[in-house]
Formats: sequence, structure tokens, C-alpha cells
Amino acid sequence: MKPIRPSLSSPATFARLGIAPRLTRPAAASCRRNLSVSRTLCAFQPLKPKTAIMSSSATTLKGQPLDKAVLDAMLRRRMFYTPSFEIYGGVGGLYDYGPPGCALQANIVDLWRKHFVLEEDMLEVDCTALTPHDVLKTSGHVDKFADWMCKDPKNGEILRADHFVEAILEARLKGDKEARGQKVEEKEVDPKKKKKAKSAAAVRLDDAVVKEYEEVLAKIDNYGGPELGELIRKYDLKNPETGVLPSEPVAFNLMFQTSIGPSSNLPGYLRPETAQGQFLNFAKLLEFNQSQMPFASASIGKSYRNEISPRAGLLRVREFLMAEIEHFVDPEGGKKHGRFHEVESIELVLLDRHTQLSGKTETKKMTIGRAVEGRVVDNETLGYFLARIHLFMEKIGVDLSKMRFRQHMANEMAHYATDCWDAELLTSSGWVECVGCADRSAYDLTVHAKKTGAPLVVRERLDEPKVVEEWQIDIQKKKFGPLFKKDAKAVETALEATSQGQREELAKELAETGKVVLEVEGVADGKAVIDKESVAIEFRKRVENTREFTPNVIEPSFGIGRILYSLIEHNFWTRASDGGDEARGVLSFPPPVAPTKVLLVPLSSNAQFKPTVRKLSQKLRSLGVSSRVDDSSASIGKRYSRNDELGTPLGITVDFQTLQDGTITLRDRDSTAQVRAEEDKILDAIRSLVDGSKNWAQIEAELPKFQGQEIDVAVR
Amino acid sequence: MKPIRPSLSSPATFARLGIAPRLTRPAAASCRRNLSVSRTLCAFQPLKPKTAIMSSSATTLKGQPLDKAVLDAMLRRRMFYTPSFEIYGGVGGLYDYGPPGCALQANIVDLWRKHFVLEEDMLEVDCTALTPHDVLKTSGHVDKFADWMCKDPKNGEILRADHFVEAILEARLKGDKEARGQKVEEKEVDPKKKKKAKSAAAVRLDDAVVKEYEEVLAKIDNYGGPELGELIRKYDLKNPETGVLPSEPVAFNLMFQTSIGPSSNLPGYLRPETAQGQFLNFAKLLEFNQSQMPFASASIGKSYRNEISPRAGLLRVREFLMAEIEHFVDPEGGKKHGRFHEVESIELVLLDRHTQLSGKTETKKMTIGRAVEGRVVDNETLGYFLARIHLFMEKIGVDLSKMRFRQHMANEMAHYATDCWDAELLTSSGWVECVGCADRSAYDLTVHAKKTGAPLVVRERLDEPKVVEEWQIDIQKKKFGPLFKKDAKAVETALEATSQGQREELAKELAETGKVVLEVEGVADGKAVIDKESVAIEFRKRVENTREFTPNVIEPSFGIGRILYSLIEHNFWTRASDGGDEARGVLSFPPPVAPTKVLLVPLSSNAQFKPTVRKLSQKLRSLGVSSRVDDSSASIGKRYSRNDELGTPLGITVDFQTLQDGTITLRDRDSTAQVRAEEDKILDAIRSLVDGSKNWAQIEAELPKFQGQEIDVAVR
Repeated sequence: MKPIRPSLSSPATFARLGIAPRLTRPAAASCRRNLSVSRTLCAFQPLKPKTAIMSSSATTLKGQPLDKAVLDAMLRRRMFYTPSFEIYGGVGGLYDYGPPGCALQANIVDLWRKHFVLEEDMLEVDCTALTPHDVLKTSGHVDKFADWMCKDPKNGEILRADHFVEAILEARLKGDKEARGQKVEEKEVDPKKKKKAKSAAAVRLDDAVVKEYEEVLAKIDNYGGPELGELIRKYDLKNPETGVLPSEPVAFNLMFQTSIGPSSNLPGYLRPETAQGQFLNFAKLLEFNQSQMPFASASIGKSYRNEISPRAGLLRVREFLMAEIEHFVDPEGGKKHGRFHEVESIELVLLDRHTQLSGKTETKKMTIGRAVEGRVVDNETLGYFLARIHLFMEKIGVDLSKMRFRQHMANEMAHYATDCWDAELLTSSGWVECVGCADRSAYDLTVHAKKTGAPLVVRERLDEPKVVEEWQIDIQKKKFGPLFKKDAKAVETALEATSQGQREELAKELAETGKVVLEVEGVADGKAVIDKESVAIEFRKRVENTREFTPNVIEPSFGIGRILYSLIEHNFWTRASDGGDEARGVLSFPPPVAPTKVLLVPLSSNAQFKPTVRKLSQKLRSLGVSSRVDDSSASIGKRYSRNDELGTPLGITVDFQTLQDGTITLRDRDSTAQVRAEEDKILDAIRSLVDGSKNWAQIEAELPKFQGQEIDVAVR
Repeated sequence: MKPIRPSLSSPATFARLGIAPRLTRPAAASCRRNLSVSRTLCAFQPLKPKTAIMSSSATTLKGQPLDKAVLDAMLRRRMFYTPSFEIYGGVGGLYDYGPPGCALQANIVDLWRKHFVLEEDMLEVDCTALTPHDVLKTSGHVDKFADWMCKDPKNGEILRADHFVEAILEARLKGDKEARGQKVEEKEVDPKKKKKAKSAAAVRLDDAVVKEYEEVLAKIDNYGGPELGELIRKYDLKNPETGVLPSEPVAFNLMFQTSIGPSSNLPGYLRPETAQGQFLNFAKLLEFNQSQMPFASASIGKSYRNEISPRAGLLRVREFLMAEIEHFVDPEGGKKHGRFHEVESIELVLLDRHTQLSGKTETKKMTIGRAVEGRVVDNETLGYFLARIHLFMEKIGVDLSKMRFRQHMANEMAHYATDCWDAELLTSSGWVECVGCADRSAYDLTVHAKKTGAPLVVRERLDEPKVVEEWQIDIQKKKFGPLFKKDAKAVETALEATSQGQREELAKELAETGKVVLEVEGVADGKAVIDKESVAIEFRKRVENTREFTPNVIEPSFGIGRILYSLIEHNFWTRASDGGDEARGVLSFPPPVAPTKVLLVPLSSNAQFKPTVRKLSQKLRSLGVSSRVDDSSASIGKRYSRNDELGTPLGITVDFQTLQDGTITLRDRDSTAQVRAEEDKILDAIRSLVDGSKNWAQIEAELPKFQGQEIDVAVR
């Protein structure tokens, strides 16, 4: 009797091996594989520092060099976002959105819901963030959603192992370049890494060492903890802050843990992604959809990752808003999509796996139709969503010249994924992954079904019955029950979870020896001895009238905070480009995402303007157009300037002429040009500008130009 | 030298005493006070079981007796909400919203944002749910946001102490009534309590004992843990399940705890309310509002409470969506509100404190103008928000005959609150608190400012300078620094936090003895010895040009889940009232909150209907009207019936006549009446019904009636 591995009730193990349980565990190496998939369980992944580009190459909307300090100061001044709990000293990786950030976020989410959920009749759900341990154990997150961290034994500093190795080796290479008198590129990196990088001396290295370091850096994402520890010892990577070697790397799970209920015996986590809640509800959603396939669910909600070293800003945070779609599709028939023809001629900028493997970053422009035809993108459904993501980004005002779709390398993807593409946006921190779009195959539904016994499958009536020959298990309840007593259910589940190959082996062994040992998690000593009196395994014919399959999942997963931040950078510029004031920032958001659509400015705080302003404000509200009044004593120019920084696209001035003839002026944020007309005409113009049916050039052509008022615009 | 108490850097202690630090702590009794405020820190509080009414008295929208089982089955069938992680056995108090529940929630939130945030230019913020320990320590939640729980030593069952005492005493009173042959009312109570209540025998009690029990029950909310323990021993309250006395009650904090960052040394919690994030951002928000007062911030987000015994359903859950407003107002001048005149004639149903004290529940109908004038409601700002809450509830479709505003009793309120009213909705579980509207005074801003030193105040230029005589502290830096070294900052903060009364005492003692001992948290042995060389305290005149004050906060706090559930009950009825099928449920949501506005029904799944249906669907989308297509093979009546249960107000049928003459029919959910007209006219009608500018009676008068199709409506 040889024991059968792996333990059948451990789906995470199956996952590692490729869904179907196998009879033997690959001897070694599995550890490495296990480690290298850390985090890759979610399509939406943390930033890769290696994709950083030089900060100096970042530009504003008008092509000016982007001065990050100027932008940051403006975002802070206008309260787009702010460190949470700042009066208590703040907590790394936690940010609050102030009024304009909050409105911008709400508008992005609103457009997302219209573009995806309503347009495609997706089934939106709202699941809890609190998640019990068992669910995330099954999904693999408890075991694998981790980063490797070291501790400096001298000052107690916590270091992310891969970042640490990378920073020190890069610093040495930089020192080498300096020693060789070569030009050194200043990369935009984490402040912590920068500190370390700067502290390296200009020491020339052997050519062979340089080559070795470069190879290590190229493979940095592939190392597990033990290997990172080895590198630290081998290259004597001391923490420059203290001069000592950090401790051996240990796995640090990135989920926030808590305990649910009063008895403290139900451990739980805050979800690291919204996806699991959607998978667990699959059967109910399918029923809600009247059993029709394909269909998609969607969810918008907060997720949580306890980052070891969060960044300053919104790019690597510990609490963030996600919008995720799980599109369930029949794995047979090539994953076609019924609306693919609507998008097939859309051109995308692609950076495929092969290009990256050859060490290049040149992108190709290609229609999604051709990309799917040529199998650059795996299938129509995945391609359809890439195109839809492209259209969404365009709609909210992303600069398409700063967007690309990058395919994951084999080692970046979860092992079960068929294909995965990230929508990346170029910012001053380099290419930032803002949307992950992965084909998760049948992995999640399979592991949850195996663990719980819930039928997370689709049953389809076959037009023609099908004859199947297969290994079938018959349990002799009368013998089986008394044999295993309270474990009977677990043993039965384990037996039913066996693959055809396993059954064949089991049958052979049963026939030869009369019994067989099965590993079953949760039973005494983890093993069950099965005999041929209680279980029969035979190769038989069976007629099927229905086809049963586990759908595959295409998952577009959006990090709203990163999109929001990138959108800000893409729409930022300063009036310096008009020959105006360098410090006068502008955020040229398209009206649908702009936090406020119209600024109402009375010429002065004179009481006689108030009724007109109030009436206009009410009219705009009834048109569904958000507005704000600024009746402060600042000059008109200053008030407009403030609202340029808030991204308010339109401004109305009420002046003495308004009181005489009822005309008002309308100002365009981007050009600062103004028109003047009767109230009704201006309100019509606003409506068509906000709903996108007209642009400013059209309005300027229709209504009389106005010059005046904004004389003092340069005054701050 | 006598030590000065309390420790000056413990604001929670001040809070208990009433903000201003005092020289001595009230000897005893503070313990009881401390305990009775458990949970009352938040305006939005858990359900009071005592407000339960008989289930049998609940009615549907049409006045039919409400069959909760029928409603629950329907909500489950239509996936309004569903237990989270159900395939893993579920977790008490956690629910997911399915597609209709999620859309209903999104529509309620959308209307809330329009009604409150946009209408009043509130500053919406989005703060993190993860909150570090220090913040919630200061706010008082770490010490006081707790319930008392006992454990059954035999079976390990966890019991909420007050619920347990209540259940057993009620059961005994019930047994007594039975023994006396009196009629027993069947209350709707927690299943757990019901079980216990049922197990009591019909034993007649002494009249004196009955009176004693009744008195205990009337005061059940006032008991702390030790007193509940005493009651358990005194009345020998054994757990009917095991026949043993439960353990001594211990305080169980209701916050979910976790740890932030990799080093596990930053304990944190999931916020129990969204309010704290708004308070911490007060100074930035005031600046964003260009220092203008009054103003309000608002926040919509999830909060978390680890309930000891969550209910089945949405009424007592562990993760829930809140919408909270913090309106900051000058405490001087009677808390007037500039728009109070707009609402003063609105009539509200009020159940005031005095009526409740006299043991009655009769409500009074009164305009909010009269209520504020007669000081039934404390001030205009509080009154303004009560009226606005009333209007919001009306807008979303709450049955106003099932709504009342109940004033908190003195012992229900946090000690610092001036006044507090709950908007309660009548459901099959009795009166449910759905909105809490409290005057939180200056409590939160004061404690956070004291703890952090951040100036959470408003500074106003005085028209006339003011001369103030007061005790002032002068620190002689040269002596003070070397005397206290690293503790100097803490000692200085403690000194500056002293009240005028304390300063007078300190000055006296300094003059008499030359030194004085000050309790300072965080310094060696908690005490600092101050001498007159390093500190001078003198009574002097000072001219003030600005007035500085801490704003008071009026907080309307909405529990969205409870509102959503109550709204469902208020809008539910069955066709039985039309003489139709008892089991055919209808949810008569007003169009703005209905999950889907229009159902599109082709007569059959015949392919020739598809283009028309697709075109209609696109047109509705461009009008901003959400629709769904049901082209399943079920009869038209069955398809409409399904959507009546989903609350879809309108239905369009496409039939063979449509293909000939382009006319379509429009069906009204509530009356099932139909009209038929050309597409454009029907789309116009839909738009005006959805935006509320017309009602169905007007549409019926305008367009030709149609009879047909729905012959099979009774078929399910």
C-alpha cells in the first residue's frame, strides 16, 4: 500500500499542480513555484519598481516638464487627498479623499458603472470585506498572498527583501558606472530605496560581477525567500543605515487579520480583492440570470493589503477602492464574445510577452481584431474587455499617448492563468498598472466547489445524449458508514474528488491488494484505508443528457485610486505654457469626471448679486449639473484660478450688466475665453458641454465673445 | 504638595467629567456612569429589543397583514440580499447584496447625495475604515464602545448579558401570566431569546416579585456589567439550555481589532462610525471652505461592529453602510440655521422625552417651527435636519404613516450630547432606528485637539477688541528645558491644558511652597515637579482681537441597510388585495429608487423581435433610464410577475403589431394597466414617469389604453 498524495481536501495544493489532483507531488522545486506565485493570485497587482522611468521625462498635458513638487503642493492645497490621521502623525499607506478627490472618485465610479455594468447588463453585487479564514485558505491567499521581509537586527527596520536586494545591487552598479565615468540615470524610486542607492560609493566592479548583478536584477521577481537570503549572504548585502546584514527573509502575509464574533474562535481577514465574494455567489447569480451564459458579475468596494513599505501618495496604499468584473464564460468554443465585432477595429498599444522576453519595451499598435486573430491576445472575450477598457480610459480623460497594454510574463501570472494583460498608465513614477485583465481559468470556482461541495457549475441540456466511458466509484453505504463512522463524509468527498487517472490507479491497487490508502485531511493521522468490500471502482459506460462544466473567468480588475492619480497627472498643466504664471496650475478634466462642473462668481460680495446667483444655482441643480458659488472677497481672477486648480471646466460671472439686461458670461477653463448671452442660452450651452454633445469651439461660434473682468487673472 | 488629578493628557477622563479638566475626580459612581454610556458614543445605535411590537400588527402597503415568511422567501428568491459565505456555512451578521439589493442601495445613496450633499454644498470626504488605536482611544471607543457578555460555563454559549436577563425575566412574567390565565402577547424577538422565553414554565409569582421584575426590565438599559451580574445571582437566572448560571459579565469591545504594518506594533481597528475621520480633517475642511462657518462635511462608507448576537436579516449586522453628516456650527447665538424658514412649516410626528418618561408612546404631530419654538427640539439646526430627514424619507418612498421621530432619554444619550432624535420606521420587527440625529456638542473636536495639540478651532476677527483678565502661564525656557529635558514638551502641553481654576490653585501653591506636583502622562512615575524659577503663573489682562471657538457638531447619521430593509417592507404587498394570487408579491418602489426602471419584453424569443428590443434598450440607456430585457420563454404574465417582485415600475411589450406599425405598450406595475402608442410617445412618457414630473394617471389620460397580452398573468 502506498499512500496517495496530495491530500485530497487541500485545493490549494491542486491549484499549485494545475487543478486536477495528481497521484504524486513533484518531488522538490514545488517550494520555489509556491513562492514565486506569491501575490499573483490577484490580477490587480502591486507596482513593479523596475518599470520606473526617469522622473524628468514626465510631462504635463501641454508637454511641459512635469514638476512633481508643484503638482503635489497643489493637490495638497486643494485637498484632493490627504494623509489619514495626520494630526496623529499619520499612518503609512492610508489616505483620505477631500471634497474634490471624493467627487472625482465618485464620477469615475459612476462612469465605470454606466460603461460596464449598465451597458452590458452585468449583475452588480456588494459583498462584505470581512471574510472568514476558510474562504481565503481555499483561494490560496492564506498560504501565498505574501511578500518576503527581513529585519535589520541593529535598528529593527523592516525591509522588503526583494526591494532591499534590488536597491543595494542597483546602488553598486551605479557606483561602478560612476567609477567608470559613465552617465548615471536618476531613477524615480521609493524614497527608502533612493536613500540606500545614494549611499553606495563609486567603486569599480569586475565585468563578470556586473553581469552577474544584472542577471540577478532581471530575475528579481522570481526569487523566493530562501534565495533572497542566499543572495544577501553571497553578495554581503549590508544595510547601509547600520552596516549589518539583515535577518533571514520571512514570509509576511499581506492580509489584515481580525477575529469575527465574541468568542474569538472565528479568524477572519479583510479581503485583498473583491473577487472571492463574487465567486462564492456564482450559483445564485447564475440562477438570477435565469441560467443564461455567458454573464458577468461586478463589484465596487474597498480592499485591503498590509503593504510592508507603502509609498507616499496613492500608488501603493493599504486600503483602496477596486472595481472588479468577473465574466463567466464556457471554456469550450474558444471563448468567443457576442459583441466582439463592435470593438474589433479599435487600435490598442500592445507590449507583448515576446517583445519583453527579448529585453525590449517597444510597443505595437494593432487592432484588437488582428491581435486576437494572430493569438497575440488569447481569445475574443479577453480581447473584448481590453478594447472596452481602452474606451473607458478614453472616456474619463486619460491621455491615450500615455497608455499601453502590457502582457504578463509567464512568471508574473498565477500558474492557472491563461493570459493576462495590464492597462498601464505613464506617470512621473513610470508605467503604473491601473487595470489587470486576466483569464483566471476555472481555478476559483473549482477550488471552492471542491472544498464546500457546492455545485459551482453550469448544467446545459445536450441536444444529443452522449455516451461516456469512465471510472466510476460505487460506495457500499452499509459497509462504508460503519468503517469510517464520523469521517465517512470526508472520505467520500475525497474519493469523489479523485481524477480519472487516480481512480484507475486506485482500482488497480484495490484489485491487487484488496485495499488502498487514501490521504484525507481532517481524519485521524490523515489517512483512510479503503477496502473492496466498502468501495468498488469500475470502468463503465454512462449516458449523459446534460453537459456540466465549470465556467472560466475573465477578470478585468480596476484600481480606482491609481487611475484617479494618473488621470490627475495626465490632465495637469500650468499657465506657464500660455506665457502666464508658472505657479498657476490647471486640471483639464473632461466635464463628466470634473469634481464640480460650474463655478458661480458674483462680481463682488455685494448683496444685490445674491438672488441671481441663488436662482442660477437652483437651475443648474435641476439640470443635474453640480456647481459651487465663490462669493469670497478675492478678485475674480483669483477665484477662477483657484477653480482651475480644482478642475472646474466652466465659470459663470454675474456682474452689474446682468442686473440690467439678464445676460451672464460663461468662461472656458482651458482657453480662459468667455462668451456672453442671456441666461437661457448660457444654460443650454452648459448642458451640451457637460453631456458632451458640444465642445467649446462650437459654443464660441454660436455665442458672442466677451472680453473683460479677468484682467487680474495673474494676481494670486 | 498634593498631586493634581486627573492626569492632564487623558481626554477620555475629561470627557467623562464634562470636557473641562477638574481638580478632583468625583469619588465613586463614575464607574456606573462610565458603563451606562457604553455604545452611546455614536448617534446611530443598535436596535433596542424593547421597542419590538407584535409581528401580527405589521401590514403591507395595501394594509394586508404582512406575512414575513412570504416576504423573506421572495427577497431570497430575487436575490435582494443573501448571507455572505453561505456555501461555507455563512457568518452571523454578514450579508451580501445581490443585483436588485445592490441597485436599490446605489439609488438610495445617489438620492442621499443629491438631497444632502449637493443641495447644501456639503464637503464630502472618503476616509479610511482602518483606524489606529490612538484615535479611538481618544474618542472614547476603546474604553467604552462595549457590550456586557457572559459565558455559559457548561456549553460555552456566549450571551449578551442585558438580553439574557431580559429574556429570562420576560419568560418568567409570561409564565406568571399563563398561570394567572391571562392572555399572553407573542412578541417578535431574537430567535435566541424566543427559545429561552419559551422554555419557562407557567409558574405564578408573588405580586411584589412581578413588580420588581417589571421595574428591572424598565431600567434594563441602565445596568452595567457588575449590576447585571448581581441580577443574575439575585434572581438565580440560569440558562435554560444548561440549567447553570452564566459567568460574571465582562465588557466586550465591539470593534474589530487588527494590526497595521509589518512590525505588528501599530494596533488598529475597523471604524465603528465614519464620524472620526471627518473630525480629524476639520482644520483642512475649514480651510477648504475658505474659513466660512457654518459648514457640513459628509461621508458615505462602511462601518463595522462586532455584534455579540447579530440578528438574522439586515437589522443588526457586523458590516454596514453608513451615510453621516457632521454639521459644524458656532455654539453661540442659539445654533440658528439660515435655511430654517424653508422647512419650518413641515409637520413631523414626534415622540418626546417627557411622553416616554410618563410611560407612554403617544406621538404628537407638530410643525418643526413650533417644536423648536417650544424647545421640544433643542435648536434650529437640529430641527432643520429633522425636517430634511423627513423630506428625504418621503422622497425615497418610506410610508410616512410608519415613521416617527423619537427623542433619546437622558440615559440613552452620550453624556456630552445636548439633544438627540432618532428617525424610526415601523417594520415587522417593531420600530427600527434608521437615522440618529444628535447634537454632539464640541466633544470630539475638543478631545482630539487636547490629545494632539492640533488647533481644531475657528478663529473669527472681532469687530471690537475684547479685554480679558485671566491666569496666564509663563515658561522660563532656560530653566524649564534643562529641568525636564526630554519631557519638557509633555509637561508644557499639560500645563497649557490646565483650566483657569487649576491655574489659580497652582499659582497659590507655587507662591506658598515654591513648587507643585503635576500629573503628566508619559513622564517618569507620571509626575512632574514644577518650581517657581521655571514657571510663573499670574493673573493678568490681555487684549483679544480674534475670538476662538470650538464648533459644536450636529450629526445626522443614516444606517443605509436598515433604511433599505424598512423601505422594502413599506413598499411590499401582494396581488391578493386585487383578488389575485396571494403569492404574487409586488414591491411598489418609486421609480427613482427602483433597481431597474423598465422591463423590455418581446412577445416571444422569436428572432424578429430582437432588433427592436435592442434599439429600445439603447434609446433608454441614452435617456439615462436603466432597463433589462427578459426574452426567456416564460409567458409574458410570468415575466411581468417576476419583475413586480423586483420592483420594476414600468414594462414595455414588443409584439407583432410593433413590427407592423411601430407602436409599443407600456405597463404600470402597480395597476397592471397598459397604454399603447408610438415609440417616441412611450419614451417621453417613461422619461416623465422616471423623473417624477408625471404620474401614471396623467399618462393614462394622455395615451390610448391597451388591453391584451397579460391574460396569463396569474400563471406562475
